[in-house]
Amino acid sequence: MKDFGQATETVQLEGDGVTFQARAVGPPAAAVWELWFRFTLKVGNGTSTTMAPDLNAQTAKDMQEARDKVSFDLQTIRDHLFGEHSVTNGAARSGRRNWESFEQIERILRKEPVFDKSSRDFIGRVEAYKRALAITKRLTELQRLHQWTSEQAAQAMLILSETLPITLHDFAFEPVLLGQGSTDLVDEYWKLVAHKGIQGCYLQTELGHGTNVARLETTATYIPETEEFELHSPTLTSTKWWIGALGKTATHGIVQAKLVLPGGKDVGPHLFLVQLRSLEDHSLYPGITAGDIGPKAGGAALDNGFARFDHVRIPWKNMLSKFATVTQDGRYIQPQNPKHSFAGMMYIRASMVTTAGWTLARGITIAIRYATVRRQGEHDDRGLERQVIQYPSTYYRLLPILSRSYVFIALGRQTTKSFTASAERIKQGDLGYLAEIHAMLCGLKVLVSTETINGLETARRALGGHGYSIFAGIGRMYADYLPAATFEGDNFVLDGQVVRAALKSYNFLVSTPDRPLGLHSSYLRLLRAGMLNRPVISAMMWQEHAAIIHLLEWRAALSVQSAAQNSDHPDAGINYRLSKAVTEAFVATQVGAIVSDLNQLSPNEASALKDLYLLVCSYLILPRKAALVDLLAFSLLQRAPDQTDPTRDLRAAINAVCLRLLPNAVGFTDAFTFSDWSLDSALGVSNGRVYEELWKRAQLEPLNQTNTTPGYEESLKPMLEEGRRIASSTKSRL
Amino acid sequence: MKDFGQATETVQLEGDGVTFQARAVGPPAAAVWELWFRFTLKVGNGTSTTMAPDLNAQTAKDMQEARDKVSFDLQTIRDHLFGEHSVTNGAARSGRRNWESFEQIERILRKEPVFDKSSRDFIGRVEAYKRALAITKRLTELQRLHQWTSEQAAQAMLILSETLPITLHDFAFEPVLLGQGSTDLVDEYWKLVAHKGIQGCYLQTELGHGTNVARLETTATYIPETEEFELHSPTLTSTKWWIGALGKTATHGIVQAKLVLPGGKDVGPHLFLVQLRSLEDHSLYPGITAGDIGPKAGGAALDNGFARFDHVRIPWKNMLSKFATVTQDGRYIQPQNPKHSFAGMMYIRASMVTTAGWTLARGITIAIRYATVRRQGEHDDRGLERQVIQYPSTYYRLLPILSRSYVFIALGRQTTKSFTASAERIKQGDLGYLAEIHAMLCGLKVLVSTETINGLETARRALGGHGYSIFAGIGRMYADYLPAATFEGDNFVLDGQVVRAALKSYNFLVSTPDRPLGLHSSYLRLLRAGMLNRPVISAMMWQEHAAIIHLLEWRAALSVQSAAQNSDHPDAGINYRLSKAVTEAFVATQVGAIVSDLNQLSPNEASALKDLYLLVCSYLILPRKAALVDLLAFSLLQRAPDQTDPTRDLRAAINAVCLRLLPNAVGFTDAFTFSDWSLDSALGVSNGRVYEELWKRAQLEPLNQTNTTPGYEESLKPMLEEGRRIASSTKSRL
Repeated sequence: MKDFGQATETVQLEGDGVTFQARAVGPPAAAVWELWFRFTLKVGNGTSTTMAPDLNAQTAKDMQEARDKVSFDLQTIRDHLFGEHSVTNGAARSGRRNWESFEQIERILRKEPVFDKSSRDFIGRVEAYKRALAITKRLTELQRLHQWTSEQAAQAMLILSETLPITLHDFAFEPVLLGQGSTDLVDEYWKLVAHKGIQGCYLQTELGHGTNVARLETTATYIPETEEFELHSPTLTSTKWWIGALGKTATHGIVQAKLVLPGGKDVGPHLFLVQLRSLEDHSLYPGITAGDIGPKAGGAALDNGFARFDHVRIPWKNMLSKFATVTQDGRYIQPQNPKHSFAGMMYIRASMVTTAGWTLARGITIAIRYATVRRQGEHDDRGLERQVIQYPSTYYRLLPILSRSYVFIALGRQTTKSFTASAERIKQGDLGYLAEIHAMLCGLKVLVSTETINGLETARRALGGHGYSIFAGIGRMYADYLPAATFEGDNFVLDGQVVRAALKSYNFLVSTPDRPLGLHSSYLRLLRAGMLNRPVISAMMWQEHAAIIHLLEWRAALSVQSAAQNSDHPDAGINYRLSKAVTEAFVATQVGAIVSDLNQLSPNEASALKDLYLLVCSYLILPRKAALVDLLAFSLLQRAPDQTDPTRDLRAAINAVCLRLLPNAVGFTDAFTFSDWSLDSALGVSNGRVYEELWKRAQLEPLNQTNTTPGYEESLKPMLEEGRRIASSTKSRL
Repeated sequence: MKDFGQATETVQLEGDGVTFQARAVGPPAAAVWELWFRFTLKVGNGTSTTMAPDLNAQTAKDMQEARDKVSFDLQTIRDHLFGEHSVTNGAARSGRRNWESFEQIERILRKEPVFDKSSRDFIGRVEAYKRALAITKRLTELQRLHQWTSEQAAQAMLILSETLPITLHDFAFEPVLLGQGSTDLVDEYWKLVAHKGIQGCYLQTELGHGTNVARLETTATYIPETEEFELHSPTLTSTKWWIGALGKTATHGIVQAKLVLPGGKDVGPHLFLVQLRSLEDHSLYPGITAGDIGPKAGGAALDNGFARFDHVRIPWKNMLSKFATVTQDGRYIQPQNPKHSFAGMMYIRASMVTTAGWTLARGITIAIRYATVRRQGEHDDRGLERQVIQYPSTYYRLLPILSRSYVFIALGRQTTKSFTASAERIKQGDLGYLAEIHAMLCGLKVLVSTETINGLETARRALGGHGYSIFAGIGRMYADYLPAATFEGDNFVLDGQVVRAALKSYNFLVSTPDRPLGLHSSYLRLLRAGMLNRPVISAMMWQEHAAIIHLLEWRAALSVQSAAQNSDHPDAGINYRLSKAVTEAFVATQVGAIVSDLNQLSPNEASALKDLYLLVCSYLILPRKAALVDLLAFSLLQRAPDQTDPTRDLRAAINAVCLRLLPNAVGFTDAFTFSDWSLDSALGVSNGRVYEELWKRAQLEPLNQTNTTPGYEESLKPMLEEGRRIASSTKSRL
């Protein structure tokens, strides 16, 4: 990135009170973002005699003033955030006790030199990988030393927020082995796995296939004579690819391969345990070609790898045969239908939503703190420039992200509760219900990942030029989180699942109107009563959660009805649009439940949080959210006789709630209780001294450790000397 | 990033014909994007016996088939793209001749070993910087060797698409010196600058100030006794920051500093030429502290730097005094109003829009080619999986980006023409008109930068998992282009300018209805006739450019009117919303002009291009574009008695035009004529063999050059050994 500050030419727009400057930079390819507009308030004829205050000292003052303004008790809000299930889905505990355990673990971690983050910004992949291994080693030691539960270990990982190869061992290799391995195989490996005596990875994705597992090409052919399976990669596209920890770390792997029976019958993908590297010197086993797939977005420290198998033999017992098995003489035995896994899905669902919330929380803390101490542009009554956060275009972008982070954290808790409540029904085999929950999960996944990615980038852009510095911290967060969008690469699948379930419920409703509706299709009840009691919109209603939630349910109901009635002529965007409508209605009702719980809190805290959650509800309806279009299209929002624009009241209401929230913005972010070490952002330092921190970090840049210029002797010097030679020998101008 | 392929548990959704698998990975903080949904078509009971074809060979076949399908003459479309002003704003030339010169320069460049791109993905900042200097040196030699005009040199930079420190010398330092330096100063330095005898940078932005130049803190105090200026950085926040090429490269700089006269009067920011480094050994001059500001988004090879001045003296003649000057005895002489700069603005405006087009062109070429050869999911009649581009959710995302790239390229040309036509009026001092054009430029800047950033990311996500690999190529493009969003950091300023000009024109219209409207406010004419002849919407109209353009003009007119009538109660988002409405109306009318020019072409090519431009028009109205909300809110789009949803016809029309464009998608991207060398993307190779290319590039990863694992001895080995020791000594299970 280049300097944002150059200007070549000036055009005075008389009377506008501004100076417009623009410059041409770079070849056209680069020029677009080199162009720079600048508006300078003209004092008289460009003369300014104001004495500027000490901007650096001012940053700390501004942060202190912001904290003095906070209207609520910080600990109450903090305990609300850390309430049960808010960080992990562990056993129910009070928010206070959750936070204390969180705090205790962090105190241990931040004392460890190995976990120091100051070098992260300057090291290449190899160094980053070595650092990750060192962190992994120390983390394992600490877990033993303090006898952390697996939940506490997970909390430690969350606090560290580093990408480590070990993650794949703990959360992919281990559960797959335990979940699908035979008792004998589990007995043989369990202790080695638990104590990290081996390092595992999980090999499924291939160069040619991600989504469609049925088309994986790797084969495992059973040889009855020797009672072995022969693993083989028949084609280039069958190369295992993207496999975390395979590149350099793993000693063992579980491979997804098509099981081929004697006689050549292919019975589809099954799992096999394979040793990849020697436990003596870590060298690759014969017949295995493996390596790292190269740099990618985020996760520099992770060795995503590739592997090819050339007729590699493994013993019969290494097939993971808990559900499907092959007898020693080569007969295939059908898989059963595993119900055990539901609890696992619960865990995922909770952490998926909650994690999105905590990730947004980090980004928005940085953005709100910086926007509070950064002053630019218009002057306030004290002759100071205005705090950036005071500009409508800034708080209008940032506050909704803050509210979403709170909602996702609470929603994760809420979702677990409601889904846990219904776990019984599913254990009893109510698969229709399971299907509906699964569809809702797809919708939630799309919503939280999309919102978190957008939210992080919006927060980063609100940082202005300094937001592009790696020291700002959000850029790294974005790159590491971005892969969540891969699910979006699959949105047509996920949205399709949501839509399928919604249409199914609708058709049931039409065929059997008095059939009870599931938790996630309750909005369809509105179609029973028919169109008669559609809501009537008034300016007031935008201040009421209930009214907005009702509107969003109506939108979902009418969208599903319209889609069902036009299912013979779908448009290209229908799945995306419909899935959004259904999921946003669900989220809105969940927010309603969260808000009603707030009455346990004292009035001050309750009302502050209610505003925060109200902002989410109204924001769900703004254009970017597509809901507004639907409300207007379905005439749920109609122009009153005296109105030119029926959306004005909503926009005014959002501005009003933003202005109520503004004084508490810093307080809401402080309630996350991120330490400076954990947040690791020059623009998010809690004392507000962002300029000192930027300066300090820039001094660590390797290029600044010497006064010499790399490449000077080879390139720069000869070029300059040749230029001077020609210049002195040239008589006329060019 | 981690493997996308793991699965721990399976829940069979009976009767759904799908298997749903999910896995818990990582601590909650990581789990969200580790969660993986997979739907596998069940063949019988998980049994698949289909013989898969050679996927690798298929990629090349698919690409060839796509090319065979193209309905138009490639050269005609190519020449349309390269038409005059389409690449730079040089003298008018035919598209054919533009392309030939383009092609000739590229042939020269891609032969140069120094310009090889294969190492780019693996080197750190220092190596990247050294590589950039070597490229700069060779590029300078080639320019002399082939006697390239400055326009051809710019074209060469565009083809190279590398970030080079030299850019700041050519496009910031040089024009500022020439534009604002006195004749004596220019005479003294011109040849040195032109022949790269010195390397310049431009120091304006400070740690504490970007936008508000009036508040820059660096001072230049005139000392009449010695006829010198004394440059000084009084505070930490006055440190010059983000300055391109300052960190390690520049020998000279032009500094923006507050001019302080004898007696202490501060007359605001002025420009001063300062030597920063010795021409002997490149060491920093006394009193100057400078260095690199550290890593940032994109531009790894660029040394954005900081600098502080400790009472640094420079001679009187080094003030850039073409407009404002100080006499030797210290009297200040007022600046005049420089008109010379308009041509420069023309150049910027053209390259700004055109560049956005060519950047999108690179990204969409990669995405469409990969989506054409990538097969996944459903099976087609040949038993092959479906090409990803055939999925509605894919072409619905990609084709509008393709059309925008064409529009921005043509729009750059169009804008230059129309603005050039009116240059005279402005030269004659019609500043109101200049203000209006300036406002429109602000709007265009916001629109093209926003659309290009979004378009690049949308294209990247359409690549699925492989899109996260650096070898895909779009990630780097995105990071390098992203800073264009800094303008968006300034959107409240830019949008504000657009809105101010629009309201001004509206008020003129109200006060003096028969006053002629400027080019950029012609949409306001609709308010003259009053609401009576509002358009009536029919399904047909979505096939007509003119009708859609008319709608968008109506939307702009009513938005401005409504904003004017409610100016006393603006909502937080009004500037953003209104600016969009006005700019999109302008863009639409420009597209109309482009389309009417197409009749010069033969019917085949004309109709293909018309569809492409039609898609842009209709896309301007989709939800993400906010226009649909306005159309509905202002009742420009009303529900026909027989409709439940007035937006259905539009959605259907967009799907229809997408289906017409689909067979030509690869053809439209081939017309950009990017060579594989210039595109530098494993997923965008023109022969379609993406898997071979991914494999080839992964082998170059430094981690794969040895079989050893970095950090094995220090961390991994001891951890594994300790784990095995504990495992063997543990009796019971944990």
